[in-house]
Parts: sequence; structure tokens; C-alpha cells
Amino acid sequence: MNDTPVERLGWLGTGAMGSVMAAALIKGGADLTVWNRTTAKTAPLADQGAAVAGSIAELTKASVVFVMVSTSADLLSVVTGEQGLLGGERRPEVIVDCSTVSAEASAEVRAACAEAGVGFLAAPISGNPHMVADGRSAIVASGPGETFDRVARWLRVISPTVVHAGPGEQSRLVKICHNLFLGMITQALAEVTTLAEKGGVTPAAFIDFINGSVLGSTFIRHKGRAMVERDYTPTFNNKMLRKDFDLGLGAARSLEVPMPVSAAVHQLIQTTIGHGFAEQDYAALYEVEARAAGLRGAESDA
Amino acid sequence: MNDTPVERLGWLGTGAMGSVMAAALIKGGADLTVWNRTTAKTAPLADQGAAVAGSIAELTKASVVFVMVSTSADLLSVVTGEQGLLGGERRPEVIVDCSTVSAEASAEVRAACAEAGVGFLAAPISGNPHMVADGRSAIVASGPGETFDRVARWLRVISPTVVHAGPGEQSRLVKICHNLFLGMITQALAEVTTLAEKGGVTPAAFIDFINGSVLGSTFIRHKGRAMVERDYTPTFNNKMLRKDFDLGLGAARSLEVPMPVSAAVHQLIQTTIGHGFAEQDYAALYEVEARAAGLRGAESDA
Amino acid sequence: MNDTPVERLGWLGTGAMGSVMAAALIKGGADLTVWNRTTAKTAPLADQGAAVAGSIAELTKASVVFVMVSTSADLLSVVTGEQGLLGGERRPEVIVDCSTVSAEASAEVRAACAEAGVGFLAAPISGNPHMVADGRSAIVASGPGETFDRVARWLRVISPTVVHAGPGEQSRLVKICHNLFLGMITQALAEVTTLAEKGGVTPAAFIDFINGSVLGSTFIRHKGRAMVERDYTPTFNNKMLRKDFDLGLGAARSLEVPMPVSAAVHQLIQTTIGHGFAEQDYAALYEVEARAAGLRGAESDA
Amino acid sequence: MNDTPVERLGWLGTGAMGSVMAAALIKGGADLTVWNRTTAKTAPLADQGAAVAGSIAELTKASVVFVMVSTSADLLSVVTGEQGLLGGERRPEVIVDCSTVSAEASAEVRAACAEAGVGFLAAPISGNPHMVADGRSAIVASGPGETFDRVARWLRVISPTVVHAGPGEQSRLVKICHNLFLGMITQALAEVTTLAEKGGVTPAAFIDFINGSVLGSTFIRHKGRAMVERDYTPTFNNKMLRKDFDLGLGAARSLEVPMPVSAAVHQLIQTTIGHGFAEQDYAALYEVEARAAGLRGAESDA
Repeated sequence: MNDTPVERLGWLGTGAMGSVMAAALIKGGADLTVWNRTTAKTAPLADQGAAVAGSIAELTKASVVFVMVSTSADLLSVVTGEQGLLGGERRPEVIVDCSTVSAEASAEVRAACAEAGVGFLAAPISGNPHMVADGRSAIVASGPGETFDRVARWLRVISPTVVHAGPGEQSRLVKICHNLFLGMITQALAEVTTLAEKGGVTPAAFIDFINGSVLGSTFIRHKGRAMVERDYTPTFNNKMLRKDFDLGLGAARSLEVPMPVSAAVHQLIQTTIGHGFAEQDYAALYEVEARAAGLRGAESDA
Repeated sequence: MNDTPVERLGWLGTGAMGSVMAAALIKGGADLTVWNRTTAKTAPLADQGAAVAGSIAELTKASVVFVMVSTSADLLSVVTGEQGLLGGERRPEVIVDCSTVSAEASAEVRAACAEAGVGFLAAPISGNPHMVADGRSAIVASGPGETFDRVARWLRVISPTVVHAGPGEQSRLVKICHNLFLGMITQALAEVTTLAEKGGVTPAAFIDFINGSVLGSTFIRHKGRAMVERDYTPTFNNKMLRKDFDLGLGAARSLEVPMPVSAAVHQLIQTTIGHGFAEQDYAALYEVEARAAGLRGAESDA
Repeated sequence: MNDTPVERLGWLGTGAMGSVMAAALIKGGADLTVWNRTTAKTAPLADQGAAVAGSIAELTKASVVFVMVSTSADLLSVVTGEQGLLGGERRPEVIVDCSTVSAEASAEVRAACAEAGVGFLAAPISGNPHMVADGRSAIVASGPGETFDRVARWLRVISPTVVHAGPGEQSRLVKICHNLFLGMITQALAEVTTLAEKGGVTPAAFIDFINGSVLGSTFIRHKGRAMVERDYTPTFNNKMLRKDFDLGLGAARSLEVPMPVSAAVHQLIQTTIGHGFAEQDYAALYEVEARAAGLRGAESDA
Repeated sequence: MNDTPVERLGWLGTGAMGSVMAAALIKGGADLTVWNRTTAKTAPLADQGAAVAGSIAELTKASVVFVMVSTSADLLSVVTGEQGLLGGERRPEVIVDCSTVSAEASAEVRAACAEAGVGFLAAPISGNPHMVADGRSAIVASGPGETFDRVARWLRVISPTVVHAGPGEQSRLVKICHNLFLGMITQALAEVTTLAEKGGVTPAAFIDFINGSVLGSTFIRHKGRAMVERDYTPTFNNKMLRKDFDLGLGAARSLEVPMPVSAAVHQLIQTTIGHGFAEQDYAALYEVEARAAGLRGAESDA
């Protein structure tokens, strides 16, 4: 990155995830100014060389401002609010929203940016702070091609996988597809693990083999362990997964795409909820599968 | 491995896969004698330090003999045949079969070994020669615990993932479960890729994102590329995959395990065959999905 | 009916269906006054003994007024419109709506009746005019128990099957359930007919046997004939059936009822639409099934 | 039937079902001779005018002999046994087997008849003795066209629905298809009844409406009542139905017919068995559906 002219970037929101992403930019050679509602959280980044802004308005000196906040309301507030990025006379060229927000909030912010002549990119990230720090995250962005091209090199500093999904809200659809896929893999894993188990193979050995094979993935490693330990402490509960399947099958209906396995898994998630696991992790798909195979005794009932 | 006392091992079958596995044993410090029907194919291993046997009988000086042959008939011939490993007076302590053979052949060889007082381990490997050489393969073994313990350290020299699935033919069930899982992941990927595509996302970008995410795997990388390129040149065709689903659902029926998604995918493979893709790669599940979504024109019909 | 004191009834809407229903009431001993926008259509009923009203207002002399109109807008107009049943000073005690209208319109009319102190019953009928005349129709009503009891004897004069589904809009849910069931039976029939056909049984013989068995029904007789003749002239097209499945699975989602087979059929209807049968009768589920079984040549493509 | 020349018929097996079928032939004008292992059971038919044979050999004076026995072994014994219909010098022209036997037994008898120059028709009947007496049964026959034509008029005396399914063992496939259809209708009914129930409709009212509609059938009337009463006293248990689905999906696999809904229901039957209902009536599909919808309390567990 040494030969690129140094560019002035802004970062809004330095929670756990925002901080590791911003740190990656600093390490990648960016001239970064950061702002956070609670200023204390910006200290570690200041130590790494970031300037700290006293107000959101100060961030507008940057040509590109990245936003990483918690909720749809936060996003609306920091962009379109009175004290927001679009609230003053000076505005950044491009706003890149890395938050996971509702489609409605995203569309509202996109429209406000368009009116203000500011480029907008929705660029949610997949992975947790630990994975981002290890270089194992992925970013899916959507917005106009020229906006994407304008900031892609910085996104690539943060994440080894950066994908431009389309000119509008496609990044949201991609994240829903990701979660449909994740739900289907989980049910598939529940079925084969149960089959192996009833055939005399210990679940742990089975999942170790799958993970050593070409099918292995970080996801299967984690979710497989939850199944083996029958630990349904929620990382993402069945109601949340059902919500994503509602959205995904709704999108499939609108776009006229038949989804036979997705639809089957949607109903199995509902069955899992009906059996009392609404608030448990969706790894409980395995519990319902195992019980239907006659594997569990009454004492293990939820 | 330097501190382990050198053990005399035998290797029977030095085709493409057998050769990389045998080479790994040599590199791992084994005193290895190899035999192959076509002697010329043993030359590269001889260059790496292997002794070359003139007959199968000579291999029986080894305490453990690994077998890697192409077919069930070959396995029966080299083990139970007149000139086979059990045919003479001297016999190895343990035979480890790494071939992918029928359950019937495996059981017949297992019984013959038992009668002859020779330990037998079925230890099929997942991966191709390239992956074995790169240390990205996995071995699932089944047979008596003490037999497994006797040879596990050598299996671990070949493959980073070595799993003991059970005392009998469980390794066969595990490989079938692996292939059921692989078929389900393929259909799931076909559905979400089609949905993303109809929503305006290019399939290549979508699959890149999935592979950069926690869900990414070697398998998805390869099968996703086949979908993107709509290249159905068979690596494993739909009839072969249907066969594994026949076996898998048959096992599930015997063991009384309901498999809702496996059963749905079984029928979708049959649908794919009905649409003319019997001899094509099972990546064609995507083609049938895409057409059902109205994505393909008549000119692309098989 | 001779011993029941004669009651004054009104009938609003004398199209094909309304006329046979009203005629049944006359035959059943009712003192019936009828009204229709196009007065000419009331003539046959007048011949059978009905009085003909000159305005909707005249109908309000009746204690119970039945309504059978074509659309939601018509229902709103004839009940809540200025010249409607609730528009003047005199009102009937009970309004029975036999039309098939939207849930929204039904709820709006129900609320208006409640406010006006008029009992309201939603009582859609299943069957066509021919079947009503033959005594082979069914009525599912919902509304307060006392309102149902007040008019049940007249509904029974029209139809041998009269069911009280609940106090609110349950009759609407029942009709959706009816259509889900009808879609599932159609796909099931498509599967077994195709299986029999590939096994050498002519579809006509197969369907004749089914209809002679305990499973036989008026529906299977008609839909089976359409399959045998591969006649997909729409009686109800795939888009209409998909709409009912959208509503049904939406209701199931709200009520948290897993519907595995309904969901599978929903996706198969979408597949049928994707193959070009959107505007054809849903008997085309059979065509898609037969093709997936490799039964149809290219010359028969839609 | 008065103008048809009287033909000499034989009836072998006068249990509950055989007796009502034989009685129908007598009423239809046949000159009937009957035989039963326990002679006493032939008395009521003798009263109606049948001659009673002292041995199976005596039946061979008849040109056509109908067989209605309980098991495959019985069929083999009475046809191919030493004292059987093919055992002596005189043989009937045609044997019509109305029993429900295995495909193997049927094929063995068919081959023996062919060798002996005797026509053979497999002609199982659908319905119970009560329904046969009421003229509500159905017969599906398979065998050579000329054999069918030779005896069709007598089959039509027994049953209003007589279908010729094909020249070989097709009648067996048709009965399996019938049972697949029956299983699918049951699951479909379980889903919609549960949905209606959770929406506030009493199951009894819902099923009454369905039965009054075009979808109504004798089967739904009976199975619906079992669901309403949650009475799973077996008429046909889940293991029996699973067996028919095993056979049906096996046939579909051989004939290469995808059966998405049949396969889904097969897995749901397995799930029902896994939940403890193996020996209960398959109406228990409703119980498992209702529980998955959260409708049942723990106290109602099987």
C-alpha cells in the first residue's frame, strides 16, 4: 500500500467489531480519524495512530466515512440526524455502512445519500471480531459500481474476501441466502450425524472426519461441536433463524424461485420451535432429529 | 518420528493414490516394502528408499500391510487369492485396506482375516492424490480397537485426520453419510445461488462470498465453480450419487432414522436424471433448479 | 318444513349461483323477496313464487337477508353503501354473506353490521350451481353462535352440509385449508398416476380404480380426467392456487403450525409455473411430474 | 343376466370376504360350486343355492375358479399343491385370484398356470365385506387381455368398478399406489386439520365441511373421525403403512419416477414410529403433526 497516496478516511463506531476493522485500516496505511459516542472506546485506536474527532461533523473532512453501529435507529441517527453526516454543510464523498441493519433503514439512508449527492455502499461483514483480526472475514457490498470501485481497496485491507453483489440492496439478499444455506447445512448435518450415531459411530468421531474432509468448514466445526455436546445455548436462536427463512422464502416467492429444501428446513425449524426450542440455538434441529429417530429418552426432554 | 523404533511395513498397490500414501510413510520414517502388479510403477518409490518385493508373499515379512487397489475383485484376489496375503504360511499381523470397495467384499475379507488370525482394518481415505500430498486428506477406519491402536500412528503419518468409527463396517456407513451430506450441500447451494442470481447477484460473486465466509469449504469452492461455469463434466455423475442415496436411505430405513432433507434431495437427483442428466456431474442439480426458476432458455436444454 | 312458521327472507344477488340457492329456499317453504341489480335476472325466481323488490331498501322488511355477489367491492356497496342494507332506517336482523370475498372486506362488513346492531354471518359455499341444485354443496359459516343458530335451518335447506366454524373469520381459514388440501391431493394423484403409468398401467384405468375405491371423490373424478386427457384448460390456474398456498402457509406461520407437505407442494406449484404453466390449470402438476419421470417427449413442451 | 347361458363357476375359500363375493355371483345367476377347508363355513352359501364340493378336485369341473384365501402359502397350496387345482388331470380354464398375496407368490402361481395351460388373473379387491355387500368395492385385475375378457362379466357382478390394469403383475402395483395415495391424503388431512384447529375451528366441524365438499370420500369420513377422536386403535398400523411406502418408493426407484411428496410422507411415517406409534393406526400422523404445532400437552404422550 506504500505507493498509494495517503487518503483521509473516517470511522464512525468503535465497538468490538468496528475497532478491529478500523485497526486494519490503520495498519493498511490509512490516515484515519475515528469517532464514537463514548469517546473512551477510541483510545486503543488513538494509540495505534488514529486521530480522534470531537464530533461527527469533524469526520466529514474525510473523503470516505465507514459506519459500524448496532441498530437501524443508530444508523439513521448518525447519517440523517441533525448532527449526522449529512446534517452539516460539508459532507464526505462516500459513506460505507458495514452495520447489519433492516432493509428499510438501509433504503432510507441510501435515498438520503442520493439526494445529498453522497455515494452510499451497504457493506455488511461476515465473521466475528476475532475472525476479522485473523483475516478470515468476508464483506459483501452493494451500491453503484463506481462507488464500490472508489472504496474497494480499503475494504480489501479489512477483509481478504470482498464481493460486489450489485447496484442496489443485493448485499442484504446475499446475507439472507447465506443464512438459508447455513440452516440447510445444519439440518443436513443433523441427519447424517444421527444416522451415523444409530449405526454405532460416535458423533464426535463422525464430525471430526467430516471436518477433515473436503466438506469441512469453520461453521461445521463449531456447530458440530454444539451437536456433539448437545449444547443449545443460543448463539442464534430458532426464532431468529425462522425469521431469516421467512425473509428468504418471501424473497424466493417474489422472485419466483422454487426452494424445495429451504422450504422443508423452514418447516423443520417450526417443528423445533413447536417442540419447545424457540429460544435455544438452532443446533437443536439435531435434538429434534435424534428424538424422531428414537434416540433420546424422556429424561432429556426440554 | 525419529524416536520410534523402525517398523517393517508393506504396501500393496502403487497407483496414483497408493504412491502418494506410500511416499508419506517413507517420509515418516517407515521401513517400507512395496509391491505392484505392474512393477514399473514402483520405481519412483524405490528412488525414495522403498524396497521392492518380487511377489505378494514377500510382503508378508512386514508386520503391517496396507492395501490400495481399484476394485472389490482386486481386493479379494490380493488378500484371499491363492497368491494372496493369506495364501502362504507366513502372514502379516495386520492388513489395512484403504481401498473403496463394496460392503460385501469388505465383510468377506474381514471374515477371512479373522479366520486366519490376522487383524483387519477398513480405512478408506477421503481426498485425491493432490490433497493427500498437501496433507489435506482424511481417513475413517473401522475394526477392533486394538487393531486400530496398533496402526493409528502410521495412518496419522499419511493424513492429518484419522478417525476410528467403530469395531465393524462403520467406516463404510461414514463414507455414505459423507456423500449424503455432499449431495444435500450441493442442492442447498443450487437453491441459494439461484435465488441470489434472480435477485441480480452474479453467481460467481455470490459463491466467492460464501467461500470467504465461515461456510466456505474446499468442496463448495470446486462445486460452486462448476455451477458458475455450468460445467457438468462428470467428476461423479448423478447415477453414482443416486446410488449412494439409495444406500444411505436404505441404511436409514434399517436403522429407523427419518431423513426428511436427504429424502427430498434423493427425489431431486431422480428429477435431474429424468431431465436427461444421468451421466452428467451432479452439479447439474443447479441446472434443474435454475430452469424451474425460469432462468434458462430452451437453447440450453440437455 | 310445513310446521315452521313462515319467515320473511330476502335474497340479494340472483346470478347463476344465487338463483339456485334462492330457489332452494323457495322450495323449502320460505317467503322470499329477491333483488338484483339487473332486474331481468329475477324473473325465473318470480315464476317460482318469489316477490321482487324494487330497491335494496325494500329487502330490509325481511328478518334475514342473504347476499350473493361477485366481488368485495359489490359486497361493501350493497351492505355499507348509501343505498345499502345498512343505509336506511329499517334494517334486517341478520345479514348472511355467501359470497367469496377478501378477508378485509369481510371484516369491514362485519364491523359495520356490529355497529348497526345487525347480526352478520360469513357463509361461503363450496360447489357449483349444478352441485347446489343436486344437493351436493357444503356451507361453512362463521359468526356469533346465536346468529348461526338463528339462520342455520335455512342454510340447511340450501345445502346438506352446514358447518359452524367459529365466532369470527374462521370460515375464511377453512376455505383456505380446503384449497391447500385440494392442492396436496392433486400432487399426490400426479405422483401415483405417473408411477402406475411407468409400470404399464393406463392412467384412465388407474383413476377408475381409485374412484371405485374408498378414496374416490367428486374432485378426483374431475381432476383425474383432466390428467388422463392432459387437458390443462384452466378451471383454477396455478397462479391462483399458489395464491391460496401463500395465504395458507402465511396463516400456518402466524399460528405456528409446521406444514411439511403443504410447503413441498407450494414449491412444486412454483416449479410448475417456472416450467411455463402459470395460466394453465393446476392439473399441470401432473405434466411436470410426468416429465421429471422422463415420460414426455420434447414435442409436448409447453 | 337371464339371457346369458349359465356357466359353471367354482369358488375356493369362503371366509368373510369370500362368502359375500360368492353370494354376489349366485345372485348374479352363476351356477356356483364352493369349497372351503372348514366345510361348515359353506353352509350359508349352500342355502343360497351353491353346490358344495367335497374336494378341490371337484372344483375343476368348473370352467372358471375364483380363489380367496388368507396367505401366500395358502394360495400356493390350493393351486400348485398336490391336492391343488393344478394337481389332477382335469383343470379349470381360468383361475382368478382375488387374495392379497406377495408378488413372489403371485408370480410363482402365474408361472405354474402358464405351464399347465391355465389362464391366470390376479384380481385383488378393495373394500371390506360390508362394502362389497353394499356394492361399494373395486377390483383391479391384471393378466392377459383375453383372460380378463373371459371373466370380466363375473367380476362386474361382484363389484361396480372393475379395472384391467395390464397383462402381468400390474394389479399389485396399483394396490401399492392406492396405499401411497392413502398415506399422502392422511398426512395432508392432518396438516389442514391442525391448521384449522389452531385457528379456532373444531376438528369435527372442519372434517364435516371437507366431507360435504367435492373432496369428501368414504376414506376421509373414517380417517377424519379417528383424528377427531384421537383414536389410534389400529385398522392398519404405521409399520404396515411404512412397508407399503418401502415397496412403493422401491418401485418408483426402479421405474425412475421422482416422488417428492411420497418420499416426504415416508419420512413422516418413520418420524411417527420414532415417537412411539409403530403399532398404532397411521391416523397417528395427526398426533405427531399436532404436537409439532405445540397443540398437545405432556399428559397425552404415548
